[in-house]
Amino acid sequence: MNQQSEASKNLNVGLIQQNHLGSKARNLDYVTEQINHLAKQHCKLVVLQELHGSAYFCQTENTNYFDQAEPIEGPTFNNLSALAKQYNVVIVGSIFEKRAPGLHHNTAIVIECDGSLAGYYRKMHIPDDPGYYEKFYFTPGDYQENIQGHMPISTSIGKLGVMICWDQWFPEAARLMALAGADILIYPTAIGWDQGDSEAEQQIQLDAWLTIQRSHAIANGIPLISCNRTGIEADPSGQSQGIHFWGNSFISGPQGEILLQADANEAATINTTLDLSHCEKVRQHWPFLRDRRIDSYQQLTQRFLK
Amino acid sequence: MNQQSEASKNLNVGLIQQNHLGSKARNLDYVTEQINHLAKQHCKLVVLQELHGSAYFCQTENTNYFDQAEPIEGPTFNNLSALAKQYNVVIVGSIFEKRAPGLHHNTAIVIECDGSLAGYYRKMHIPDDPGYYEKFYFTPGDYQENIQGHMPISTSIGKLGVMICWDQWFPEAARLMALAGADILIYPTAIGWDQGDSEAEQQIQLDAWLTIQRSHAIANGIPLISCNRTGIEADPSGQSQGIHFWGNSFISGPQGEILLQADANEAATINTTLDLSHCEKVRQHWPFLRDRRIDSYQQLTQRFLK
Repeated sequence: MNQQSEASKNLNVGLIQQNHLGSKARNLDYVTEQINHLAKQHCKLVVLQELHGSAYFCQTENTNYFDQAEPIEGPTFNNLSALAKQYNVVIVGSIFEKRAPGLHHNTAIVIECDGSLAGYYRKMHIPDDPGYYEKFYFTPGDYQENIQGHMPISTSIGKLGVMICWDQWFPEAARLMALAGADILIYPTAIGWDQGDSEAEQQIQLDAWLTIQRSHAIANGIPLISCNRTGIEADPSGQSQGIHFWGNSFISGPQGEILLQADANEAATINTTLDLSHCEKVRQHWPFLRDRRIDSYQQLTQRFLK
Repeated sequence: MNQQSEASKNLNVGLIQQNHLGSKARNLDYVTEQINHLAKQHCKLVVLQELHGSAYFCQTENTNYFDQAEPIEGPTFNNLSALAKQYNVVIVGSIFEKRAPGLHHNTAIVIECDGSLAGYYRKMHIPDDPGYYEKFYFTPGDYQENIQGHMPISTSIGKLGVMICWDQWFPEAARLMALAGADILIYPTAIGWDQGDSEAEQQIQLDAWLTIQRSHAIANGIPLISCNRTGIEADPSGQSQGIHFWGNSFISGPQGEILLQADANEAATINTTLDLSHCEKVRQHWPFLRDRRIDSYQQLTQRFLK
């Protein structure tokens, strides 16, 4: 891997890892300030964390939260659209989407640097674990023959393979994004520790989370941005000790090499420059796409083989 | 993940990472000695490295090497069969298989502890890079509707998801093994550094290799054994500086946690106990198999989506 690319294509990318600050307005103020900072660093892409406008409300099942949901081109879009235009950046935001009464999604919205909607992605894989009761709130994203589903979103800076949180555990999703031409894999996310788990177990979980995402960069030869929440959020039902979101947002190169990583417990706005020409070189040296045995993968569409 | 399983099912597994010792006979002597050692440690499964009987001859393209190939139940099988029976262990061995004149495979053979052939696996993904001219020597393994291909091999100690080296970069292969009921993922392998690469690049490559394999354990909630060569082997053609096989064989738990790892530059025989009941608990806590979007994975059988 010693060849130098003749013409390198650089892209300055950033992310905003934050605490929930108590209200949509405060979270927006914070994001505004941080996007301003990133724009001064010449950032062209800003990734926000999952459900950045609110608390992570899925710790309990409560229909009152449906009142917080909004359409794709609703208030969050309007706010981020103004910021994208003002600061000339592409923004990956995250909303609790109301598609119809009683039909909601966990949706990422991608906003072009002119303020227009470049596209949206509805979370395909929905978790349901104690503290993460997402199947109650979110319908999984549609899959309709190459429309929606695992489709990257085209923008002025490239095709963005935006997925959300639980999607990150599924190599199939990352692969499909890569096959559809994604230039970068992007995960807004909200994951943390159960405070009842031992420190050793917590470390294993964090490491697994880093490892599985880095593996998608490696398997597909493309860089990856993962933006997670930080801070402790109480369980409104009082049934658990709440979630300690583990931060550790990171930006990885196409060999899974971590270029930049945030702390666990601090809000962090970080950015770095991706060399997309280098990414192409990596794919030439590690030609996994060349050698996939597509004649033998049919059974990946099966639940289990017995 | 604090629940303790009531009845744990333990399996003592080991691997033998070695240098090429110059001849088939010397390599066999070494393996014999090390299997004896592992048996004394009450090991029930022994994994050998890729092409453990010989040098890694794929550094050049030379038809003379075809004379080294052997049938599945040939001399290597006979030797390992005797060892399996004598020491009451299941052995995963690796051969250069001659299937017919001009038709060869890179094949793993799994030998039951009574010395019988439990099954074999023909490497599905074949690399071809400078120094690893495997497409010259090996036909990719067949895929025939659930026969061969990505099928685990049933043994007295469980279903072994045996793959080989380059297969390890393809999440599809590991997933198919898991869907077919594999209890453990196993990779005999032969990978090393190009000595012309910088130390930083070498570290990135090793780390990517560890990461992608650990990710298969994580995505599928099963343990993994990877057995690599160590030592420097010269390029018979003299065209390169040879390969520095990077060792680092390891055994990982079902969350990708490394339980044991060998050094880069030393032969190493290591073993540890896998708790297979714990593995089942991990799958319950991280229910990725529950949530796969099988309705949306059809295009994984495509080369690329444009």
